[in-house]
Amino acid sequence: MARYQAEIAYDGTRFHGFQRQAQVRTVQGEVETALGRLDWPGDAILGAGRTDAGVHAAGQVIAFDLTWNHPPEDLRDAMNAHLPPDVAVRRVRPARADFHPRTDAVARHYRYHLFCDPVRDPLRERYAWRVWPSVRLEPLVAAARALEGRHDFAAFGSPMHAEGSTERVVYRSGWRQRGSAFEFDIVANAFLYHMVRRLVNAQVAVGQSRVRVETIGEHLTEPPAVPIQGLAPPEGLVLLEVNYPPAEAGDGSEGVKETL
Amino acid sequence: MARYQAEIAYDGTRFHGFQRQAQVRTVQGEVETALGRLDWPGDAILGAGRTDAGVHAAGQVIAFDLTWNHPPEDLRDAMNAHLPPDVAVRRVRPARADFHPRTDAVARHYRYHLFCDPVRDPLRERYAWRVWPSVRLEPLVAAARALEGRHDFAAFGSPMHAEGSTERVVYRSGWRQRGSAFEFDIVANAFLYHMVRRLVNAQVAVGQSRVRVETIGEHLTEPPAVPIQGLAPPEGLVLLEVNYPPAEAGDGSEGVKETL
Repeated sequence: MARYQAEIAYDGTRFHGFQRQAQVRTVQGEVETALGRLDWPGDAILGAGRTDAGVHAAGQVIAFDLTWNHPPEDLRDAMNAHLPPDVAVRRVRPARADFHPRTDAVARHYRYHLFCDPVRDPLRERYAWRVWPSVRLEPLVAAARALEGRHDFAAFGSPMHAEGSTERVVYRSGWRQRGSAFEFDIVANAFLYHMVRRLVNAQVAVGQSRVRVETIGEHLTEPPAVPIQGLAPPEGLVLLEVNYPPAEAGDGSEGVKETL
Repeated sequence: MARYQAEIAYDGTRFHGFQRQAQVRTVQGEVETALGRLDWPGDAILGAGRTDAGVHAAGQVIAFDLTWNHPPEDLRDAMNAHLPPDVAVRRVRPARADFHPRTDAVARHYRYHLFCDPVRDPLRERYAWRVWPSVRLEPLVAAARALEGRHDFAAFGSPMHAEGSTERVVYRSGWRQRGSAFEFDIVANAFLYHMVRRLVNAQVAVGQSRVRVETIGEHLTEPPAVPIQGLAPPEGLVLLEVNYPPAEAGDGSEGVKETL
């Protein structure tokens, strides 16, 4: 029996989030069912983070213990053969016996997609939030810059556990525009519950000139007792990547790099 | 009563194609149901072309006759209020009383999306074909260039009616690459049945070095009696735009340009 680390991708539209719950379809539930077909003896896989219902992932990280006497690529393919079309294992590699995808993670990278259009667009709305009136890039960029650094983010989310710290370190935060489409990228050591969706909603208000850009910084220097109102919808959000210290990035062993 | 021209967009995944059929869900059926709610007295809308099951559209063009005493933007919004999330009217404008979206069209623009990856990717496979081994851009570009001009495309499709001509004029045909993603754009006066999907499938064989690039040109100069085997899957294909002579592009009347 050995521990494996896997990157998984999913279209969150038809999932009630990552975390297993009774009676509803979750990503964790589907992955555990697939592993069960491979004689996995475990009770629960470990995950780097719990994405909400409707949120997508390109690089969620999980870990589990399994006896597997073939190359990791074969394990990836075997799991994919048992998974439904909206979730897939992108990569599998051996990990330290005590590797934990949440507590060992040093950073998470989320991306939020939106587009500005007065009319519904079925080809874009599965993976992006439609916003109208249009936002302007300049105030968005200023708002995103104010988020960088170590701050108390109590205005933008609650800790997973009561009494938990609301301080987080944002390493990178920025917006890009391509025509009517906008992307927000944010990398932090960790995130509070609903933090990215609150940050996007607040910044869109700034981008639409409904709220002054200074408000964002004020929320950080004078954090309110409870998080501010308003969440951007889940379908625009993707967990892109979870980062680990170099030693965890493949266990240093041979044959870990896949032919991607 | 006046004739209207509308551009519609749809995610083709859950449709049995554009054209109305008994018992199954079609784009035409959904649009006619929505128009029925607006007291449309017609039997059938007119369409620029019949997209296959699973094929998407950003700019399919339809026409219908309706008594409507408000601005076209209000008609657009009223139709969208009655349409399901996977189809939307993007624009409505008044048209000539005898305007026909198929016979008046002078060109159609299709785009095909594919990406090269050995592993399933749920976030990309709804709107693109996953291809492996990877294709190379250079032979694809050469193959696409061979398609431009007036040719007998009998190798790549059949006419809608027996005895119909298989000659078509390709105005533009080309490939672009961004990382592992490839896009094929083709603009022609008209297309044969399954023509774009056959062209993509044949070019991918060239791009993977399974077939010589010269084969594409040979299919045009020495067309076989029946179309060649093999279709690229529908999910990668989008009908982007249908073009009309300037006089048809909005009837020349005031207030036609929308605030998009």
